[in-house]
Amino acid sequence: MKTRIDALTRQINGVLEAHLPTGDVAPERLHEAMRYAVFNGGKRIRPLFSYGAASALQLEEDQVDTVAAAVELIHAYSLIHDDLPAMDDDDLRRGKPSVHRQFDEALAILAGDALQALAFRVLVSGGSENAGAAVTALADACGSVGMAGGQAIDLAGVGETLSLDELTAMHRLKTGALIRCALSLPALMYGADDDCVGALSQYGDAVGLAFQIHDDVLDVEGSTEELGKPSGSDIGSNKPTFPACIGLDASRAMAARLVQEARDQLTLLPGDTDLLAYLAGFSVERRS
Amino acid sequence: MKTRIDALTRQINGVLEAHLPTGDVAPERLHEAMRYAVFNGGKRIRPLFSYGAASALQLEEDQVDTVAAAVELIHAYSLIHDDLPAMDDDDLRRGKPSVHRQFDEALAILAGDALQALAFRVLVSGGSENAGAAVTALADACGSVGMAGGQAIDLAGVGETLSLDELTAMHRLKTGALIRCALSLPALMYGADDDCVGALSQYGDAVGLAFQIHDDVLDVEGSTEELGKPSGSDIGSNKPTFPACIGLDASRAMAARLVQEARDQLTLLPGDTDLLAYLAGFSVERRS
Repeated sequence: MKTRIDALTRQINGVLEAHLPTGDVAPERLHEAMRYAVFNGGKRIRPLFSYGAASALQLEEDQVDTVAAAVELIHAYSLIHDDLPAMDDDDLRRGKPSVHRQFDEALAILAGDALQALAFRVLVSGGSENAGAAVTALADACGSVGMAGGQAIDLAGVGETLSLDELTAMHRLKTGALIRCALSLPALMYGADDDCVGALSQYGDAVGLAFQIHDDVLDVEGSTEELGKPSGSDIGSNKPTFPACIGLDASRAMAARLVQEARDQLTLLPGDTDLLAYLAGFSVERRS
Repeated sequence: MKTRIDALTRQINGVLEAHLPTGDVAPERLHEAMRYAVFNGGKRIRPLFSYGAASALQLEEDQVDTVAAAVELIHAYSLIHDDLPAMDDDDLRRGKPSVHRQFDEALAILAGDALQALAFRVLVSGGSENAGAAVTALADACGSVGMAGGQAIDLAGVGETLSLDELTAMHRLKTGALIRCALSLPALMYGADDDCVGALSQYGDAVGLAFQIHDDVLDVEGSTEELGKPSGSDIGSNKPTFPACIGLDASRAMAARLVQEARDQLTLLPGDTDLLAYLAGFSVERRS
């Protein structure tokens, strides 16, 4: 599996490289900031979900290159904006200065804005007949009823005590919506029957939530070195987390249960589901 | 003409109203901020350019409703982000508190982000066969080689002395790209011959630049009350402007020449060009 993931990571990096303007094209510093944000050693989890969905649907992996790249560009833009002083105020991202620390705040805002536009451009560059439906799905996943909405609810919740239902609902938007989108776009663009779409959606729902719970767990138990950002930063900033809500052990148990739920869905898919099965496990086993 | 413009303004406001989530849908405050930014008494110049292009191309105006709305949503998001403390740091927008002053900075960033996503969603909601090409054009107009790129160059130019060519090139991106897009999208989505596309593009180029020069002139000679923001704020913040570059009289003359260039293009278009002719004049006659 490691060989396959390495190959797919190289593949998505190549696709991103081909679509991102180079730093010697004007405006140079903006393009440098965009590249700095995208090529920062990220694990490309969301693209891997898209490639995994492609295999599970018996598509060729390169049929979803542009989908995978679009979703990753949205993710990259969201990290830039989330790190801003007015948002989570993080100076580090994967062990390196966050974009507004490496460049400046204005350029960080603009780099995020430009990456979002680029994501939609890349999404339609594959030329699918279903481009309109794909754009709608990506816009919903990252807009006010998706990722951006989840971040707004998250920020409003700082210092508040959220119930487990509220916390779950927030993360279904903040991180879940884009992960579900990474999984459902391949089905949407190439046509898949309702059972497959349903299975991928439920898999994405479960894995997305497990992924977030594990993030919160890592923030408690991981080291700053492993995480590439200060550990304990969520608790320090009074953000609502699963461990704060239901405790560390119950959080771990809930994540493990969700991974099993996700894996159960994979039997309903016609193709090779090895990558999706691996990613489900990885979501709660990673150290950063 | 006033009756026609009033009717079209009501029309675009209705389209925007229909596409924006209401303030009683979660996340409520984010949706309120998005609406506050969009319904702030803006003149809807860019939608009027799209409607004018539709008439000039012998299309029905309502065929370009979604194009007009998408462009206006991009414009609204850009104003929110441009006003942020890290960017132009403007407390007022059309006489009212800017979004980050009325709400807070985090919500202003997110409202802009969500409006950009919504713009792409609205653009494809019309269901055109050319949705992919339209998305590409809008992404280019608002991304790093368009509006966002122009803003990056503008910020980098604070305190610098730009040549007239550099200033012109910056504004062709910062404000020109989206205006050209408002004009060219109707042609792109409904198919128009190359002469028409060329005429609309050159009209947009000239009017967009005239519009910006007049903005700079107004910043010097307009009153704070008329502008709805502090007059002299560009000069006060050391931003490069046309009056600073070539003087006030030469700026006025350059804008007038561009308006004539724009009007000359209109003879090449098959339909009713009254609205586009009016808008060309308005771009240099408005008081705010």
